[in-house]
Amino acid sequence: MADRFADLSAGLAEVGCEALLVLARSSQDPDLAPFVGAVHLGDCYLVAPRTGAAAAPAYLAYLTPMERDEAAASGLGLLSPEALDLIRWVSESPDAADFMAGAVGKAFELAGIAPGRIALAGHGQAGVIVEACSQLMEKGWSFVPGNGLILAVRKRKTAAEIAAIRTAAEGTCAAFRAVAGLLAACVQRDDGSLWLESEPLRVARLRDEVARVIADHGLEQPKGNIIAPGEEGGVPHSTGTPDRVLRAGESLIVDLYPRGTLWADCTRTFCVGTPPEPLARAYAAVRDALETAHLRSAPGVCGWDLQEAVCTLFDRGGYPTQISSPGTTVGYVHNLGHGVGYDLHEQPIFKKVAGAKGILREGDVFTLEPGLYDPTPGTGYGVRLEDLVWLGPDGLESLTPLPYELDPRAW
Amino acid sequence: MADRFADLSAGLAEVGCEALLVLARSSQDPDLAPFVGAVHLGDCYLVAPRTGAAAAPAYLAYLTPMERDEAAASGLGLLSPEALDLIRWVSESPDAADFMAGAVGKAFELAGIAPGRIALAGHGQAGVIVEACSQLMEKGWSFVPGNGLILAVRKRKTAAEIAAIRTAAEGTCAAFRAVAGLLAACVQRDDGSLWLESEPLRVARLRDEVARVIADHGLEQPKGNIIAPGEEGGVPHSTGTPDRVLRAGESLIVDLYPRGTLWADCTRTFCVGTPPEPLARAYAAVRDALETAHLRSAPGVCGWDLQEAVCTLFDRGGYPTQISSPGTTVGYVHNLGHGVGYDLHEQPIFKKVAGAKGILREGDVFTLEPGLYDPTPGTGYGVRLEDLVWLGPDGLESLTPLPYELDPRAW
Repeated sequence: MADRFADLSAGLAEVGCEALLVLARSSQDPDLAPFVGAVHLGDCYLVAPRTGAAAAPAYLAYLTPMERDEAAASGLGLLSPEALDLIRWVSESPDAADFMAGAVGKAFELAGIAPGRIALAGHGQAGVIVEACSQLMEKGWSFVPGNGLILAVRKRKTAAEIAAIRTAAEGTCAAFRAVAGLLAACVQRDDGSLWLESEPLRVARLRDEVARVIADHGLEQPKGNIIAPGEEGGVPHSTGTPDRVLRAGESLIVDLYPRGTLWADCTRTFCVGTPPEPLARAYAAVRDALETAHLRSAPGVCGWDLQEAVCTLFDRGGYPTQISSPGTTVGYVHNLGHGVGYDLHEQPIFKKVAGAKGILREGDVFTLEPGLYDPTPGTGYGVRLEDLVWLGPDGLESLTPLPYELDPRAW
Repeated sequence: MADRFADLSAGLAEVGCEALLVLARSSQDPDLAPFVGAVHLGDCYLVAPRTGAAAAPAYLAYLTPMERDEAAASGLGLLSPEALDLIRWVSESPDAADFMAGAVGKAFELAGIAPGRIALAGHGQAGVIVEACSQLMEKGWSFVPGNGLILAVRKRKTAAEIAAIRTAAEGTCAAFRAVAGLLAACVQRDDGSLWLESEPLRVARLRDEVARVIADHGLEQPKGNIIAPGEEGGVPHSTGTPDRVLRAGESLIVDLYPRGTLWADCTRTFCVGTPPEPLARAYAAVRDALETAHLRSAPGVCGWDLQEAVCTLFDRGGYPTQISSPGTTVGYVHNLGHGVGYDLHEQPIFKKVAGAKGILREGDVFTLEPGLYDPTPGTGYGVRLEDLVWLGPDGLESLTPLPYELDPRAW
């Protein structure tokens, strides 16, 4: 945590700010959690002077007396509801923005932050924040966007964060094994449909099983998941129609991204029975691409370099890519990966314009997820293989060490 | 939905605004979802002119071509990535605030919103939003907080919203029945501990069961839950320690608040074996208070009136309340209820200062949740009974029609 506050100070100096202000609606806010650890608070603010003391590198303002013990567990300097004069702000105006401006102004005063330039991060109600900041600007403070600064500071994960991601990844892997188990137990009818326990196997049945395993591991799926068969999987955005009956010989993309304290993210593609030649060929190409991505992921490499390497491979296989055919909906149509942490999508960024945000460094956690798609109705398919990896002190480690096989009976 | 846009126009007129802007990081944003229905989008904006046409009362700006079909399902006017010139904004600057200012400015232009006063709602990255709005202000737009306006507009639930809350409430009720089933199956050891299937029964076991049933019903618990025995339940903020072994004769507060498309919220209190006299007396008082709250909930009544009525009852029973003893941590220490919908806590508000936001109206969904607390270590207890209710056209309906009994064997 000391390292993180040092990184923050350096970042604040770079943007010429005296302090950081994080506005949060809960301690789960991805801009707040990296500084306060696993505490449970509702609305709260973080105020971090650029030159915080070792004893109190930052101040945590909590808004309910009942949360005193939780706030204290952060180890930060505390600004209590009494110290923040909250009763005064509530009584002066029923307006949420007036309250926020009053409380934050008092928090600045208590933290010794004179009127000046502040990096602003956190998340909240757009209208309330704009009005509150406008009131604070009248008193001499000015604000520059600080969300990107925090994204950079939390790119390198702490040991506790790696442990939390590992926990989420373990639950994810258990859910994949459960899905593979159900698929392996299917029987194929003459019409090609897959049946399980005397019923046609539908997407909904797999989704129920995933939900159960994810819940058993103490995880949530706030953004749902993707269980997309055949041509549905041929459109990366499709989440899969619950009633859709699964069929032998078609692809099935399963992409799970549950959250514990932090997120995990993993994709496998299945096919029960013999895959048609285009699917088998695409699968082989995607597996090659993933292997290349694993081998080339190292400190100092850009995410975009990996994207180019994978595009070159797919080009050779005759597949359109975003580089050879910008805007294509067939072939390789998305980016190779993204950072994972307190947000499902964070740094490193695998886009061409990412700059420093796209350079892989020790401590990063990110996905590698090449895929090939054909959305043609009837014959379409989707193949995506996605690992969640950690660039640790001993090199690249996959946090999702699952089989890659299409055939669930090989799992 | 037509009613809702009419309510919005009236609200915009009241605050003297020409249009509403909602900035959202997903279509689940509680300020956006009430206008777009059950569609699945990532970052998006809503622009609603005060005098929208019947055919297109508002415009939905989506930021990824892949989301065209989902956006179209909203039935609103569409602003596509191409129309919004997104490639231009990305190429001009890598900065998220510059991008937002460019895209929103273009959305205003396409929706025919001339520079003027805009109500701003939605949620997002604080620093990015403040900077983007500051750039738009330089071009002549000004912003007033609009989050409260949307809260008022979505206070009265639509039929589809009632159905969604009902679904979440049904899953909640199923989880309570599962908890009651486990408690009823317990045996009591000589030392007072409760055992189930040859193991001491711990909070964690009940939490696992709840997670499984909630997942089976397609719901999530993004804010967790409260399963708090004895003196832990005596502090309303306590969520319950997982390892804590349950004991006969102590209270057990179970408060579940899962989310489907919308939220539900319900609390019951259990006691296996004979409750000690203070617990039995508190339970009877809370049940009386809940009955009073049910009977007095009607259109035109203020939430604060109900709070006063319940405090009067508790006063007579000799319990301190927030009115008789402000700041007390013993007795009745919180508000009687809160609205429930796209947010877990919304209007109506049961606080004294709520004004119009606190008046119960037909179409409202809210909780009624009297409770009594004693946090004394060893002998402490907590009792809370919370129903989720709908003030429908036929009067008050409980959406959580569960038994109230302390004894799980009476369930």
